[in-house]
Amino acid sequence: MGKNITRKIIEKHLVSGEMVPGREVGLRIDQTLTQDATGTMAWLQYEAIGIGRVRTDLSVSYVDHNTLQMGFRNPDDHRFLRTVAAKSGAVFSPAGTGICHQLHLENFAKPGATLIGSDSHTPTAGGIGSMAMGAGGLSVALAMAGEPYFIPMPQVVKVELTGELTGWAQGKDVILELLRRLTVKGGVGKVFEYAGPGVASLSVPDRATITNMGAELGATTSIFPSDETTRLFLAKMGREGDWMELIADADAEYDDVITIDLTALEPLVAQPHMPDQVCKVKELAGKKIDQVAIGSCTNSSYSDLKNTAQILSGKMTPPETDLLISPGSKQVMKMLAREGLIEPLLDAGARLLECSCGPCIGMGGSPISAGVSVRTFNRNFEGRSGTQDGQVYLASAQTAARLALDGEFTDPATWGPAPERVSLPEDVPSIRDLFVFPPEDGSSVEVLRGPNIVALEDFDKLPGTIEAKVLLKVEDNITTDHILPAGAQITALRSNIPAISEYIFSRVDEGFVGRMKEHGKGVILGGENYGQGSSREHAALGPRHLGVKAVIVKSLARIHRANLVNFGILPLLLANPEDYDRMELGTDLTIPASEITPGGTVNLVTGDGATVPVTNDLTKKELEIIQAGGLLNAVREGKS
Amino acid sequence: MGKNITRKIIEKHLVSGEMVPGREVGLRIDQTLTQDATGTMAWLQYEAIGIGRVRTDLSVSYVDHNTLQMGFRNPDDHRFLRTVAAKSGAVFSPAGTGICHQLHLENFAKPGATLIGSDSHTPTAGGIGSMAMGAGGLSVALAMAGEPYFIPMPQVVKVELTGELTGWAQGKDVILELLRRLTVKGGVGKVFEYAGPGVASLSVPDRATITNMGAELGATTSIFPSDETTRLFLAKMGREGDWMELIADADAEYDDVITIDLTALEPLVAQPHMPDQVCKVKELAGKKIDQVAIGSCTNSSYSDLKNTAQILSGKMTPPETDLLISPGSKQVMKMLAREGLIEPLLDAGARLLECSCGPCIGMGGSPISAGVSVRTFNRNFEGRSGTQDGQVYLASAQTAARLALDGEFTDPATWGPAPERVSLPEDVPSIRDLFVFPPEDGSSVEVLRGPNIVALEDFDKLPGTIEAKVLLKVEDNITTDHILPAGAQITALRSNIPAISEYIFSRVDEGFVGRMKEHGKGVILGGENYGQGSSREHAALGPRHLGVKAVIVKSLARIHRANLVNFGILPLLLANPEDYDRMELGTDLTIPASEITPGGTVNLVTGDGATVPVTNDLTKKELEIIQAGGLLNAVREGKS
Repeated sequence: MGKNITRKIIEKHLVSGEMVPGREVGLRIDQTLTQDATGTMAWLQYEAIGIGRVRTDLSVSYVDHNTLQMGFRNPDDHRFLRTVAAKSGAVFSPAGTGICHQLHLENFAKPGATLIGSDSHTPTAGGIGSMAMGAGGLSVALAMAGEPYFIPMPQVVKVELTGELTGWAQGKDVILELLRRLTVKGGVGKVFEYAGPGVASLSVPDRATITNMGAELGATTSIFPSDETTRLFLAKMGREGDWMELIADADAEYDDVITIDLTALEPLVAQPHMPDQVCKVKELAGKKIDQVAIGSCTNSSYSDLKNTAQILSGKMTPPETDLLISPGSKQVMKMLAREGLIEPLLDAGARLLECSCGPCIGMGGSPISAGVSVRTFNRNFEGRSGTQDGQVYLASAQTAARLALDGEFTDPATWGPAPERVSLPEDVPSIRDLFVFPPEDGSSVEVLRGPNIVALEDFDKLPGTIEAKVLLKVEDNITTDHILPAGAQITALRSNIPAISEYIFSRVDEGFVGRMKEHGKGVILGGENYGQGSSREHAALGPRHLGVKAVIVKSLARIHRANLVNFGILPLLLANPEDYDRMELGTDLTIPASEITPGGTVNLVTGDGATVPVTNDLTKKELEIIQAGGLLNAVREGKS
Repeated sequence: MGKNITRKIIEKHLVSGEMVPGREVGLRIDQTLTQDATGTMAWLQYEAIGIGRVRTDLSVSYVDHNTLQMGFRNPDDHRFLRTVAAKSGAVFSPAGTGICHQLHLENFAKPGATLIGSDSHTPTAGGIGSMAMGAGGLSVALAMAGEPYFIPMPQVVKVELTGELTGWAQGKDVILELLRRLTVKGGVGKVFEYAGPGVASLSVPDRATITNMGAELGATTSIFPSDETTRLFLAKMGREGDWMELIADADAEYDDVITIDLTALEPLVAQPHMPDQVCKVKELAGKKIDQVAIGSCTNSSYSDLKNTAQILSGKMTPPETDLLISPGSKQVMKMLAREGLIEPLLDAGARLLECSCGPCIGMGGSPISAGVSVRTFNRNFEGRSGTQDGQVYLASAQTAARLALDGEFTDPATWGPAPERVSLPEDVPSIRDLFVFPPEDGSSVEVLRGPNIVALEDFDKLPGTIEAKVLLKVEDNITTDHILPAGAQITALRSNIPAISEYIFSRVDEGFVGRMKEHGKGVILGGENYGQGSSREHAALGPRHLGVKAVIVKSLARIHRANLVNFGILPLLLANPEDYDRMELGTDLTIPASEITPGGTVNLVTGDGATVPVTNDLTKKELEIIQAGGLLNAVREGKS
């Protein structure tokens, strides 16, 4: 039986487990990347592991998210990241150099390598055949420490591409078409592996746009073959030596097959407020557009921005339509500058922002109230733009640039000829010198911390018996946003667990933190689907800091459950859901922690002597992690 | 007796008053400018006056301060400014086009014209011989309505320049030298008029840097002659027709004379935390530098940035030193792009930010904790950078660029040859098309407001008798920061008086707003020097909105006193300062408002029947303004 690309890479990196879809496999990780918003905590966790120099082939610490630096906290974080990278043997990419995924693709990603990054769009590197996955900060920290990365063995879906793109259709429209068909839940547990005769017609930037936004399918990752196009791309980047051919065997097997005829695609757009709400651009003709934003890790490459400049050249956007452009990297900026493509952007009325994530993560560039914003980004979740009632549409750079001139949605049939598909110039400038490479021996480097950077505390082992009160009782469907709200003010505290913990459940029950401090320990009682939503680790780290020993619920969301385990909080399930009503705020509980076994049932005893049976779905390894006081302790004890 | 330039311009624009230093003169205003941070309220006030089309020769509404657009409020403000400009016959400059003063110099300022702007650095246009002054928003609104601008007739100080700049010394060092000699209080009530043989050797950008930062002397304004250098500059800007010669008579008289020998100047720097803490750069040799920021209305011209690129070319800043560059306008950016000067900036490690005020006003780019930041800006007040303990130094662009490479202060003697002084290229690109010029007839334009933009309310006339309680009693030296704190959260509400009023005295007495709402009206009792500090109008508008009828104090700061008058709050002075102790929070007062006369004394009656004599220093006109309910009412009634 022939192998697909995914199996080839996994097989080569397999440390533990069986390659049977759904079973856990442990993978050796060749490369990691972090960005500043998640990376500060990841690096604090790495420090807490305490192994010195990184044990990957390459780890890069990028600064691209909080580059506005409003106040001391972000620049202090960036200094910490620079110095801890130097000490630990990682490469540092300073603010303004570019967006992590664009930079990694251009400078470091390798076909056939495994890469995990503390950012969900890490699969961008799949555009050149890396097996690249988004992960939690602790997972990345552990990978840097040489630990394997554990995932359920994915199903592999072949996306068979036929024909080739015509007219105004772009790589972005391929992934929008897939989102239209499969929805944002369509990729869970799957790798999307691109194949077929259409692959050769797609440039690396197109491929990277597709694998980048595969994250919106909920996929484990997406990957393209490494072929002659890949070789040429890497050669232009000055690293042909990083190339290897990587294609599926002719008789490779897949778990599923989807076919897309590239020739049939036309410009598409995702409507508010979900990336799978896809329609044809022409269906929206006549709708006014207040803002257009071109950039982000999805569409900020040289080809995106060269086409943008060509489309805008000699024309102007109407005064009612604001146009923001954030190039993906300084390499892109340099190529634009060399070819005289900065002036056409400025003359068209565009605002040229720094090479960073910028408006994509709501770091400035918010639309007006109820404003319609067409963006080349990957997500259009409600409020993500910074304007709660903003109406965000997702499209290709070429579509966005053309619509910016019209100031409203128009039918592509009226757009005239599409700009030529862009190839890289003969002489691509290198920006390699802008990265800060670590010294051979980092032991003398001092890691510099600002007052907002607080080293991760040591967590105690789980006691044999827990005596604590129920200090919070919440309903069904509590999200991690309920547990720890987002927003600039709170997010700036992500490197400071004591400070950020003050906001735990602050919008649900203002008294919770005070009660936790009064008692020093406590238990949370919840309903169904506790901890759904964003994967933020702080929603477990904060409660752990405050002294939460266990959450006792009817059911748990998957990622938050993993975070509770990682940070040593017992996730207990009510054997009888109706017992939820037998406990109240203030109920005293005795939990016989030492008697808990994987999947077993134990009886909690309440203050008035009643018993409440609870169970769990923990594996033996997970229970050991919790007993050790969390994954960091377990790793240090050699238990994970 | 010969005339100096200042007298020539004032004489030509004199509407009322006598040209005797200290006496009030009313001036016809030819041009106005507003920026977004102060301009939104200025334009709301202009709307409240209700006269339709602006009555100046030219009014320009620039967006350059809050261009980050975090959330809907700023972009909504910018849309309001765009539409109200179109309706009112003003030119609109969108976000990203550049910094108001740089743009105004390049595109609109005229020798011999009067200009007021709602920004303290409006004197920049004095670099080409405009009489350009910073003013409060209401003054600018009234000027747009064709009303005169009233100032005390200034003393005119001749700054005699001899010799010419050598080596690394720049225009910035001229004004730093003046600040060193005169301090930040040295210019109050004065115009600094530059003259002497050294003038001809200074380029327009050097002159504009000097007049810009003359604001830090506390001066009314600063002005250069309009000479052949000015003519050439305007010709390059495509507006030679705007030139006129403007030089002082050979026998012109001045109130004072200061001489500066340009040849003797060397690179200077203002140390934390005041622009007059000036020393020689070499005196600081060895001090590490964490950040360098080049830009702002003081030093972001083509010549500043071309020299910067030349200094940086082929070199790199050390990783420990962050370099931020904000070009002053898209015209500057275009010239840099045409000459291939973008790449050297990027290659040196510089971060290229949008053409806007940016870090100068703490809009991003904050230094690290306790970080040393060398900036080409005009102010280094404590905390202004956004980092409370940031250590900000002010220097020329050339000094800053050179220090960025060294990563520490060094002796200019070690710097090698200075870059050549820059002339404008033969062909200067125009960006005139990027301004939005108003339609001939704006009557059909709809002014668009977001939910945060609240039209100015109508204020009642002063009642004949005021019965109100003392609802706040404060100590001496209350600043406008005490009355209304700064900060991004509160500043975003500046177009929304009801919302911003919730923060009045919030950091002094949390109960004040609640008490004002409970009683609907009230009186503030204060000590000496009440209302010192920043000129913010909101520190009077907010109390007025809450129902404050009078402030009764021992003494008042000048600008806040004017704001109280403008918004119809009685500024009363205790005839016997010891009466301060006879009134407490909650004391009932009866104020016989209709009996108040300019400079006269009346008796307040307290709830227990005691009398408290109060006086005032109001002119007849000011008292009429207060009785009308504020200046806007008075203007509408033809009383001002």
